[in-house]
Amino acid sequence: MPLRCLGIDPGLGRLGFGLVVQRDSSLTAETYGCLETPPGEALPQRLLRLFSDLDRVMDRTTPDVVAVEKLFFGRNATTAEMVWQARGVVLLLGARRGIPLQEVTPNEVKMGVTGFGNATKGQVQGMVQRILSLDHLPRPDDAADALGIALAGIALYRYDALSARKDSSGDGSR
Amino acid sequence: MPLRCLGIDPGLGRLGFGLVVQRDSSLTAETYGCLETPPGEALPQRLLRLFSDLDRVMDRTTPDVVAVEKLFFGRNATTAEMVWQARGVVLLLGARRGIPLQEVTPNEVKMGVTGFGNATKGQVQGMVQRILSLDHLPRPDDAADALGIALAGIALYRYDALSARKDSSGDGSR
Repeated sequence: MPLRCLGIDPGLGRLGFGLVVQRDSSLTAETYGCLETPPGEALPQRLLRLFSDLDRVMDRTTPDVVAVEKLFFGRNATTAEMVWQARGVVLLLGARRGIPLQEVTPNEVKMGVTGFGNATKGQVQGMVQRILSLDHLPRPDDAADALGIALAGIALYRYDALSARKDSSGDGSR
Repeated sequence: MPLRCLGIDPGLGRLGFGLVVQRDSSLTAETYGCLETPPGEALPQRLLRLFSDLDRVMDRTTPDVVAVEKLFFGRNATTAEMVWQARGVVLLLGARRGIPLQEVTPNEVKMGVTGFGNATKGQVQGMVQRILSLDHLPRPDDAADALGIALAGIALYRYDALSARKDSSGDGSR
């Protein structure tokens, strides 16, 4: 059964998205892009814009699972606040549609896409292009990142589904 | 003209709210309470629950302005992440209804309610009870905090409206 995974690289100013479809052993990037909100606009309006625009993307892409990057911040508190608030809106949109969420760490993206955890951003993007047989590197970066998140999301989601089947296989009657 | 301000103390597990109505010089707490989401539930579902419940509160209270606390975190990153994601949902709800947002810092709550910036939580709550002529301290704490946020929100909103009139008064023709 094909699996449609919408990868999302959350952000307030720029939010990358990319839909990867897995059919048997083939992986295809059906669409990808970047949603933007103007920095001059008030925060609630920017969140509302993101909500409407991403809602339309979900309408169009009909994902079975949404993979969203789990964020780590050290430095810039203001950026972190904005990205977390945007991420809240992203998770809300998935929940409203009853679409399962797959959280993905940056390390899982590197591992899932290149096979090693200290891959550079360039190596990840190169592998994303290769795995998805794209004739050019997806632009902007946020879209390429979102496709990487979708690829890792598919691997983790399949793995979790498999584990769940295994976990319950001891109880044959249910 | 009466002003209806919904104060919100954002949180994922517990979100305090309180509606304060200002008519001339009188300030009344029309309603207050606390929305809760179960810690055992997945994050997207908790955000969705908050979205639905707070949407109903806004339906019922018909605020002219929403005052939301601006948060400061140092210590617990996980709590901060959850509260920021919940706060994104709160701001989104206000924006969907076109209700202006008044951000309020903890210090502005203390200043607005007690008149001094290093007031204790107990002093703020005591003054909230007194200003709003409540015969008992609002419970839980989150609701009392939300009423304090609403009171500070009204003061700041009125002040901003006044400043805006002053700023534009040089240009009499518009």
